[in-house]
Amino acid sequence: MQIGMIGLGKMGYQLSLNLVDKEYDVVAFDVNEESMKKISSMGVQTANSIQELVSKLSKPRTVWMMVPAGEATQSVFEQLLPYLEEGDRIIDGGNAHYKDSLRRNEECETNGIYFFDCGTSGGVDGARNGACTMIGGNEEVFKEIEPVFKDITVENGYLYSGKAGSGHFLKMVHNGIEYGMMQAIAEGFDLLEKSPFDYDYEKVARVWNNGSVIRSWLMELTENAFSKDEKLEGIKGIMHSSGEGKWTVETALDLQTAAPVITMALMMRYRSLEDDTFTGKVVAALRNEFGGHAVEKK
Amino acid sequence: MQIGMIGLGKMGYQLSLNLVDKEYDVVAFDVNEESMKKISSMGVQTANSIQELVSKLSKPRTVWMMVPAGEATQSVFEQLLPYLEEGDRIIDGGNAHYKDSLRRNEECETNGIYFFDCGTSGGVDGARNGACTMIGGNEEVFKEIEPVFKDITVENGYLYSGKAGSGHFLKMVHNGIEYGMMQAIAEGFDLLEKSPFDYDYEKVARVWNNGSVIRSWLMELTENAFSKDEKLEGIKGIMHSSGEGKWTVETALDLQTAAPVITMALMMRYRSLEDDTFTGKVVAALRNEFGGHAVEKK
Repeated sequence: MQIGMIGLGKMGYQLSLNLVDKEYDVVAFDVNEESMKKISSMGVQTANSIQELVSKLSKPRTVWMMVPAGEATQSVFEQLLPYLEEGDRIIDGGNAHYKDSLRRNEECETNGIYFFDCGTSGGVDGARNGACTMIGGNEEVFKEIEPVFKDITVENGYLYSGKAGSGHFLKMVHNGIEYGMMQAIAEGFDLLEKSPFDYDYEKVARVWNNGSVIRSWLMELTENAFSKDEKLEGIKGIMHSSGEGKWTVETALDLQTAAPVITMALMMRYRSLEDDTFTGKVVAALRNEFGGHAVEKK
Repeated sequence: MQIGMIGLGKMGYQLSLNLVDKEYDVVAFDVNEESMKKISSMGVQTANSIQELVSKLSKPRTVWMMVPAGEATQSVFEQLLPYLEEGDRIIDGGNAHYKDSLRRNEECETNGIYFFDCGTSGGVDGARNGACTMIGGNEEVFKEIEPVFKDITVENGYLYSGKAGSGHFLKMVHNGIEYGMMQAIAEGFDLLEKSPFDYDYEKVARVWNNGSVIRSWLMELTENAFSKDEKLEGIKGIMHSSGEGKWTVETALDLQTAAPVITMALMMRYRSLEDDTFTGKVVAALRNEFGGHAVEKK
């Protein structure tokens, strides 16, 4: 089976190699020429444009978009759509907002094209050796492309999740849960760090990974991190985020759902971006105003 | 090696059988005669009192207390201590507050007795087939009883965590993390439930357990729960707690540590205990007072 792969970033590159291993006939395209050369040297066929990529695929075509959510995805989608024909399929394997996927699905539907929003988890290693995917879109046509998902994921690692939008919604919520779990783990280690005891965090994470209730892949990653730097002294506690946590909280607001832990995990990420806060200044100033409590001068 | 086991509840009973499997010579005692009969029928030696239990052990004795934290643990500890002699060891495998363990350790030290606070995770199945334990206490003497922990836990499933108190502190923080992780998972499924999509939660949990970032034992338990009742319609969303989450939050306050996710997870448990809240009434009344917003009458 042929698959067109647009986007050879960390995920698309590894996924292409994964697909080739499983004997798919991959035609890859990226605006970055370095990535194109690199994947070409790995024996993957490349195309010099989206148009050429489409022309190299036989109908019905299956094109996998693996580019960053937002502008990049929209741009690729707009360039790709005019070249496709009725019965072709687009898989968006990126982290698009589910509402964008709903909109893109509608646009595809009016052109007789099948749109699949595919949430992909498991990181770069997963993309190469076995990912976890959750896919929304037309159920009948999904069956035709189902072998692809079966082949590139770990056992039981893909799910047809329902109509279009449901795949990216599920992936968004997955990431929201991830925010909460990570913050909970981190708060626990912060308590250990401030405790009167002297713990070896790598060993703590290891014992928690063996037989305890909180054993998890995230705790394994915690063990790895502490094995490289026993007190994480080489890094700052700045927690960036790439948007899915924010979308989860926005969705909780839209759906009037109480999700305080996921929300707080996101807020703590924002807090970590600032050395000092205006909130802190306001509260310090007010304590000084009403009670004469000392403020720390700059 | 001989071990005295005081307490044959869910954990102590299974742990006794686990120890016997590993060829330990267990002498068990519980005030509950049913439990005593039951374990006796499984070939475990029993004693009719704490005094008799101690008398059946040769020196230096090792007595494992496996009773509920608080009054029960204190009562057993007070009854046990007078019968023990210099060099004997007490292992408290329950969920005692680490400050109680510090106090009990001091009391033991003045009598030349070695106290070990052992946090135990992995549930009833873990107690029977391989638990996860984290143990604080005297390091030299620990080495003498280390084989016990090696034998009753899963591989890499025990940790000597440092001086007395450190085992129960670690277990407390473990449970705090557990609260946060569980609430994060639950909020995620709540968002799915309120979403415009129609998910099969058992399948969602299964795909998240295979290759995703949030794969974990708790997610496996989530899968199990939904496999038995696809929408959990048979149960209420009342979340009880047994104290360790509260202790974690109290400890965060003592140590002036920001732990908002663990705290919020605990607060949401308390919220779940009430059908309606006085908070809700106060806010509704205030909105009515200042803006004439409608209140819902009882």
